[in-house]
Amino acid sequence: MSFYQIAGGKSMKLNTILVALFLVSTVLISNASEKLPGPSHGISYPSGWQDWASISVSHRTDNNTLRMILGNAIAVKAARSGQTNPWPDGAILGKVVWKEKQLENWKAAISPEQLVHVEFMFKDSEKYTSTYGWGWARWVGDKQEPFNNGPEVCTACHTPVKDRDWVFTDPAPFPAID
Amino acid sequence: MSFYQIAGGKSMKLNTILVALFLVSTVLISNASEKLPGPSHGISYPSGWQDWASISVSHRTDNNTLRMILGNAIAVKAARSGQTNPWPDGAILGKVVWKEKQLENWKAAISPEQLVHVEFMFKDSEKYTSTYGWGWARWVGDKQEPFNNGPEVCTACHTPVKDRDWVFTDPAPFPAID
Repeated sequence: MSFYQIAGGKSMKLNTILVALFLVSTVLISNASEKLPGPSHGISYPSGWQDWASISVSHRTDNNTLRMILGNAIAVKAARSGQTNPWPDGAILGKVVWKEKQLENWKAAISPEQLVHVEFMFKDSEKYTSTYGWGWARWVGDKQEPFNNGPEVCTACHTPVKDRDWVFTDPAPFPAID
Repeated sequence: MSFYQIAGGKSMKLNTILVALFLVSTVLISNASEKLPGPSHGISYPSGWQDWASISVSHRTDNNTLRMILGNAIAVKAARSGQTNPWPDGAILGKVVWKEKQLENWKAAISPEQLVHVEFMFKDSEKYTSTYGWGWARWVGDKQEPFNNGPEVCTACHTPVKDRDWVFTDPAPFPAID
């Protein structure tokens, strides 16, 4: 057996191993993707939003919910520097909504109970011209079922703030440190 | 002039430049440090907390404040997986407190106005044995003035939750996705 035959044989084995690794990783990746909820109004689930930094909070006393308003890095930078009318393209705002409860050990403190839904606004002034420069999406409950009743459900409610680039949230003031 | 004298001369110049660079960088670094507030109860200001992920929110109706509860990576991981009694060493909890206001365009929504203070609990069961395993710190107002009236001011208020590792917050439920 010549050197070249041995080298060729090793190369074939390496190729086989690489192909196998590729197939295994493809299966792993597609399984991971399957865990994400389906799209809402054609918009993909924004994986990783749970670790985004905060922009504000609110307590809606008319429907007894507490809200946390988060943003991706573009949105947080805009919020902290007051660049919010309009918000920059690429900004994503997330609103996490929970039913309220009294805190067991401090009755006057209203805090989150079960998750109602998570809503997102995706700013892209070119892509979303028909919905005022924003893509509107919502995933409902613990299982994050995609909401697909149409973005007009969202924009109808947001009409009072059309002069604020369609956003209710006033970013909370953070100390000017760091 | 010998080779060694020339080399020595160059080396002296290089040393002078290095010393100058060292002095300049020292001044720059100390200026950067000067922007951070001084310690509270001997604890250094936790630089970068503004970008930490969220653990919960609350509305204290007894003193008209809204709160955002954040955590460093160790605290958020513990909160999301229910490992909170006790919290793990290294966890830092932050509570950002604002006076409340009505949202201009949705009167029933209570949201943050000016910053009151930012409070932190630093878990270290060996270092902070005299204060129940936690270091207690607070920085007040926009200027983040360090609070130094003693950690007993903090622990007195937290005594109702001594059986919950001294923490009031129930971590808000996040969807089990990602």
